[in-house]
Amino acid sequence: MGRVTERRKVIRIRDGAISTRPDTLVAEEPLEIRLNGKPLAITMRTPGDDFALAAGFLVSEGVLGDQKELQNIVYCAGATVDGSNTYNIVDVKTAPGVVIPDITLERNVYTTSSCGLCGKASLDAVRTTARWTIDDGEAAPVRLEPELLASLPDRLRASQRVFDRTGGLHAAALFTEDGELLDIREDVGRHNAVDKLVGRALQNGALPLSRTILLVSGRASFELAQKAVMAGIPVLAAVSAPSSLAVDLAAESDLTLVGFLRGASMNVYAGEHRIALRTAAAQG
Amino acid sequence: MGRVTERRKVIRIRDGAISTRPDTLVAEEPLEIRLNGKPLAITMRTPGDDFALAAGFLVSEGVLGDQKELQNIVYCAGATVDGSNTYNIVDVKTAPGVVIPDITLERNVYTTSSCGLCGKASLDAVRTTARWTIDDGEAAPVRLEPELLASLPDRLRASQRVFDRTGGLHAAALFTEDGELLDIREDVGRHNAVDKLVGRALQNGALPLSRTILLVSGRASFELAQKAVMAGIPVLAAVSAPSSLAVDLAAESDLTLVGFLRGASMNVYAGEHRIALRTAAAQG
Repeated sequence: MGRVTERRKVIRIRDGAISTRPDTLVAEEPLEIRLNGKPLAITMRTPGDDFALAAGFLVSEGVLGDQKELQNIVYCAGATVDGSNTYNIVDVKTAPGVVIPDITLERNVYTTSSCGLCGKASLDAVRTTARWTIDDGEAAPVRLEPELLASLPDRLRASQRVFDRTGGLHAAALFTEDGELLDIREDVGRHNAVDKLVGRALQNGALPLSRTILLVSGRASFELAQKAVMAGIPVLAAVSAPSSLAVDLAAESDLTLVGFLRGASMNVYAGEHRIALRTAAAQG
Repeated sequence: MGRVTERRKVIRIRDGAISTRPDTLVAEEPLEIRLNGKPLAITMRTPGDDFALAAGFLVSEGVLGDQKELQNIVYCAGATVDGSNTYNIVDVKTAPGVVIPDITLERNVYTTSSCGLCGKASLDAVRTTARWTIDDGEAAPVRLEPELLASLPDRLRASQRVFDRTGGLHAAALFTEDGELLDIREDVGRHNAVDKLVGRALQNGALPLSRTILLVSGRASFELAQKAVMAGIPVLAAVSAPSSLAVDLAAESDLTLVGFLRGASMNVYAGEHRIALRTAAAQG
């Protein structure tokens, strides 16, 4: 792909001193996601990992939940006057027999409740479309030391290669419950970074992502909490603040939600049974 | 409205010490925007300024450009089983005679070019839908001292009241070319904060927003640059990085784009004729 970053001329002003030089910027281009040939959504994204992004998007929307349901993903050529391929349109083909829910995106997620449109409707929609409930599998329940959580943001930043050059990317990383880094993805859009992670997991047959920790570089919005739930991720940790609806969804879905994860400090907003609070207190 | 923030219980961990207390979170709820009764889009937003948000959204999409084109905006009751009003659906009614472009949102913006879907198509779409070109009016061209730009982020933060309590909001502020604060809006979504600013300006008959500076608390994406252009704002300044496509749009639209505005430092990516670079150099 080779389009993750682009170079542009920039005039730098530093305490009154002026210099002109080339600067490295994060690339941003539109991506159209089609489902079995039908246009579904357009997102502004950083090129690269486009197939994973499309697959993860469809996991978040409840269309895909298993590797077997995915037949293939291709870039669409021929959408232009001269028939060339801009690598900005992907078509996701589902396997034979897969029933596609009646998704008119931006509509279906919020209108399943009797309230018409409200926060509760958003929560209801996640519950009714999720493929699985969040649980910790057959082994002992997940239980994380605060020290382990506290170590993750530094490891995220150490792996953010493009951010180092551009300062312009959101990152999302997936860790095991032991703190092992499984994957990291970056994008101009925070949702896209998570979709890329989840889509890659779907392609690898790794859904649901039980016993993992999803770390995001920014805030925890409702949509990020939704993506964690739809992928079966039990722990969502954010460097910055969560929203009210993200906390409500976490509480209802048994998702552990940690915010303001900075240094040795953090806030636990939901699912605190997965955090080893007694150990932390004993050290306090 | 009174729903800008909400209270939730939080478990705080600070260097091993644990405490439980109520926390103030930024509120997030879905808003459906209807145009003359027809559902158009749903956005996750912080309640409050909903009419301005809807109006600004329609400015960004090229539907509205003048106060006279707006007849009224109302909350829709009756969308629920019991007929109650959730204050999460607004209907924007245009004035008689206003021709509504054939907008199927998320589609029209990117498909007007022969390339099918690419960055160039996104730029073309802004050019063809913009109501006006960016110019500085009949007075002398806008010319900003770097010191004036450098003073704006502190003034933005001083005015961010909700952020102080929640840490969870994006902010957008509008200044005059002399650095006078005209308006500031906050939202969980960065696009929404700008739409609220622009919508309020439309309601006040202040479009195009010639000779103003738009400051955003985060990154400068293509969509934020697009919103500045569609509102006729000549200067967009961001505390963080711009994307490649934001820079391309600024260069094509004569929008002055400043990024990494921190302390006395900043990067000028486009429209540098509005920045008093010689003065800065003389001081260097």
